[in-house]
Parts: sequence; structure tokens; C-alpha cells
Amino acid sequence: MLSAPGRARLTVVLVGARNPQNIGAAARAMQDFGFSDLRFVNPYTAPFEAAQLEGVKSAVGATSVMASARAFRSLEDALADATLAVGTTAIGGRELAREIVTLQAAAPAMLAALQDGPEQPSAEGPRVALLFGSEKTGLTNDQLSHCQVLVTIPLFKPEEGRHLSMNLGQAVAVCLYELVRGGMEGARELPAVHQAAATGADRERLAQLLLEVMRATGYARRFPANARETVVRRLAHQLGNTRDEAATWLGILRQALARTAGEAKAE
Amino acid sequence: MLSAPGRARLTVVLVGARNPQNIGAAARAMQDFGFSDLRFVNPYTAPFEAAQLEGVKSAVGATSVMASARAFRSLEDALADATLAVGTTAIGGRELAREIVTLQAAAPAMLAALQDGPEQPSAEGPRVALLFGSEKTGLTNDQLSHCQVLVTIPLFKPEEGRHLSMNLGQAVAVCLYELVRGGMEGARELPAVHQAAATGADRERLAQLLLEVMRATGYARRFPANARETVVRRLAHQLGNTRDEAATWLGILRQALARTAGEAKAE
Repeated sequence: MLSAPGRARLTVVLVGARNPQNIGAAARAMQDFGFSDLRFVNPYTAPFEAAQLEGVKSAVGATSVMASARAFRSLEDALADATLAVGTTAIGGRELAREIVTLQAAAPAMLAALQDGPEQPSAEGPRVALLFGSEKTGLTNDQLSHCQVLVTIPLFKPEEGRHLSMNLGQAVAVCLYELVRGGMEGARELPAVHQAAATGADRERLAQLLLEVMRATGYARRFPANARETVVRRLAHQLGNTRDEAATWLGILRQALARTAGEAKAE
Repeated sequence: MLSAPGRARLTVVLVGARNPQNIGAAARAMQDFGFSDLRFVNPYTAPFEAAQLEGVKSAVGATSVMASARAFRSLEDALADATLAVGTTAIGGRELAREIVTLQAAAPAMLAALQDGPEQPSAEGPRVALLFGSEKTGLTNDQLSHCQVLVTIPLFKPEEGRHLSMNLGQAVAVCLYELVRGGMEGARELPAVHQAAATGADRERLAQLLLEVMRATGYARRFPANARETVVRRLAHQLGNTRDEAATWLGILRQALARTAGEAKAE
């Protein structure tokens, strides 16, 4: 269960993102999962400014995240207050001399670092930075050297000679999901479903009524093996998990019985 | 660990998706995570046909998934061979009388159903269908009534009066990630990092050399408490996790020692 102060201590750093739509999509994923601190590192601020302009469709509903996002000229500046920097990498052809762990494996340490701070987020508190590289190259070796942990999302191995990587917005969504999948404070609550479960008495009433229907319609005479009480009971117990559903089935069977009797009289 | 036959038994059903970019993004997420069976339900096939046209940027690298995707007129047809239909819902203002579970809670049952089949995927084998609604409305109550399980991705509660939901491509990516996060056959392998760990002897050599540097530079005289052997050893053990790193530190310390001695001579 990720706390609200914990979520406030996570920073998403987009390094060299070029597509304003992707920047907007990253902001939207942050908003969806309750994160707010977005930083952008690029010597060219045009994509960031474009994304900040209202009307970037991909950022729908994430205008507050985009409005408070900050641009930095250098990665050093963007990471100045980060106590743990986690770099995402797609494991391309690149030679990496460092250990890479799966997102799943890295999550507990990230969550521990996020939770390990004062109740109120403060400038001094721990800060976890999650870095994503540009759409074209991902994080470079130099950029990864700023990170204490390297993570990768498990991806299917593409055909030989292809170097696929995830869409930037989707990668951000998946990484943030991993952090909140166990639950978070401030999450939408699952609607409570107040439905009484069907009781043994409900089920027995159904079984008896089903047997009556079988007899009245002549089914029991044609298929006596299926009209044995144990078989009927097993069938009846499949009808209705809730009292409401059981009541509905009772009504259906009663109606069937009534119609059968009526038609029998008419014969 | 999701097997290749298991992945082949998963179907993603996009119901009423309108934006070709989103359809392409869903296809790309499927390709990334090794899934292949995409179905599209819509009385209007225009968005699907647009997405199938080459050049939908969001489907980059997922052309095989898009090429084999199929369009259906009705949800019944699309689900004809599904043994388990799982509907995604964002829990809007809608009244739902059915239990909704989190994606995390639903995953084990989905994985069990995917794995529970013959080695070779067959037409008769189990098939799990994962349904996503249109960008505008999500799955309707009628569409959800075709599903045996309703799942939701844990989302942050938006401001009052707002009904946010995830971007379609991101939602598909997150759901598929949940199924493969524990690993999958055919995944890109983490690069093996063959690096010998530093040994006790390496560390002890470092500790002795560090102590020598402290003495030669006069540091030990100025800060004797920090030059106690236990303190020095603790500091030295922070240097270098691998033999290569330990060797590098040794070189640095030796050089420092040499320079100090040289300067001492020059004095």
C-alpha cells in the first residue's frame, strides 16, 4: 500500500523525450496513478513547451501534472535532490557491464525508499527518481551511469535484427503501475457489492421445484436417470449465487410449472 | 512464468475503439509482451481499417499483430471460443451490482486458465479473452454482462466531478504486463554480467593500502580516531563490489601513495 507522502516522493524524469504526445501520455499515466513530480531534461525545450500548451490530447486530465512539470538543462540538475535514481533500459544490443533487474524485482527497494521518510514530504526527505530515455535511443550509457539501479520491463524477444522497445507513455504507465498494484492511499475504491449469498434452504427449495418441473413436463419420465434427487440437487445448486439470483430462478421455475399445468389442463 | 502456448491462448478484444492510434498502441503492447490474437468489435470498421493501413505510427513493429487482427460485428461472435471472458472497467459513476476485483487479484485465475491447456495451442483449448471498451464510455453494462470476471486497474481518485480513465493503449499495456511480470518464455534475457566478486583477500589488501595512504599523507596523525584499523576496514569494504572495481581502487590508492611519497621526498 503506497502512501500519499510516498507517492509525492517519486519523480519521473523524461530524458530527451522528443514527442509532445508521449510527454503528455507520461503525465496522464502519472495523474492516473497519483504521482505528481514530472521533470524533463533536454537541451531543446521545444517538445516540453509544446506538451505544456493546452490541447495536447494525450495529457487529457493531467493538466496539473503538466503545469507543475519542470525543465532542466542537465541530468545532474534534475537529479540533484534524488536519493535513489532508477534507470529504465530496454536491453538493446548495447554492452552493459552492470547488473539489470526486472521491474518486479526492483519494486520492493523502490517502495521501501519511497515509504522511508517523514509523514509530510519535505525537501530533505528521500526522493526516488525514475528515468526514461528518448524514444529513439533510450537512456545512453552516460545517462545510465547516474543511476544506482537499472531496471527493465520483461519484453518479448523480437525477430533477429529488430530492436523494439516500448512506447514511452506505455513504459511510464507500466512502471508506475508496478508501484501501486498492491494498492495506494487515495485510490478509487472498489464498489461494495452487498448481496446476500443464497442459503442451503434457498438451494433446497430450488432443487425441489426443479424436480417438480421435471415431473410435470414429462422430462423425468423420459430421462429418469437425470431426475434422481442427487442429480437434481447438483443441478439446482448451480442456479444462483446470491439470494436475489436464487429468487429469480424460483420465479422462473414456478412460472414454467404454472404454464405446464395450464397446458396440461388444456390438453 | 507464462508459457508460449499460454500466451497464444490470450485474446485481446477491443470493443468500439474509435482512435486508430489507440488500436495501433494496443497492438504494439501485445507485440512487446508476446501476445498475438487481437480482435476488434465495432459496427463501424473504419477505425480498424485505418489502423491496419501501414504507417500507423503507434503500431510500430506490431505489423504482424495488426495484420492478423480480426474484426467482428458482434461481441457474441468475438467471444464464441472464449472459455473465460474478463472485462476491464474503470469504476465510473455507474452502478454495478457485480463484484469487481483488482487486476492483481484477477491475474492468478487468468494465468491458471491460460496455462491449463494442451502443449500446442488448439482451437478447442481454453481461451481467455480480455475486453477493453471504447475510449469514450468504456465497456457498457451490456458488454460487461458477457464477462465472467470484472477487473479494474487501481487508479488515483480524481477530483470530484471528474471521471478519468486510462488511455486505452496504456491500459492494454498494464494488463498484459501483469500477466508477464513474473516472466515469460521467449522473453529477452537479462544480459549476464560475469564479474567476479571481490574476495576477503582483495578487501584486506585495500584496507591495508588505505591505512598506508592515511599514514603517508598525514591524515592518520590529524584524525587518529578515523585511522583505527576497524574504521579503515569498514571504509575499505565499501570500495569495489567486483574484483575489477577492487583492482581499480588498489591502483588509485597505490598511485596516491606513490605521489605522496614523491612529494614527501621533494619537500
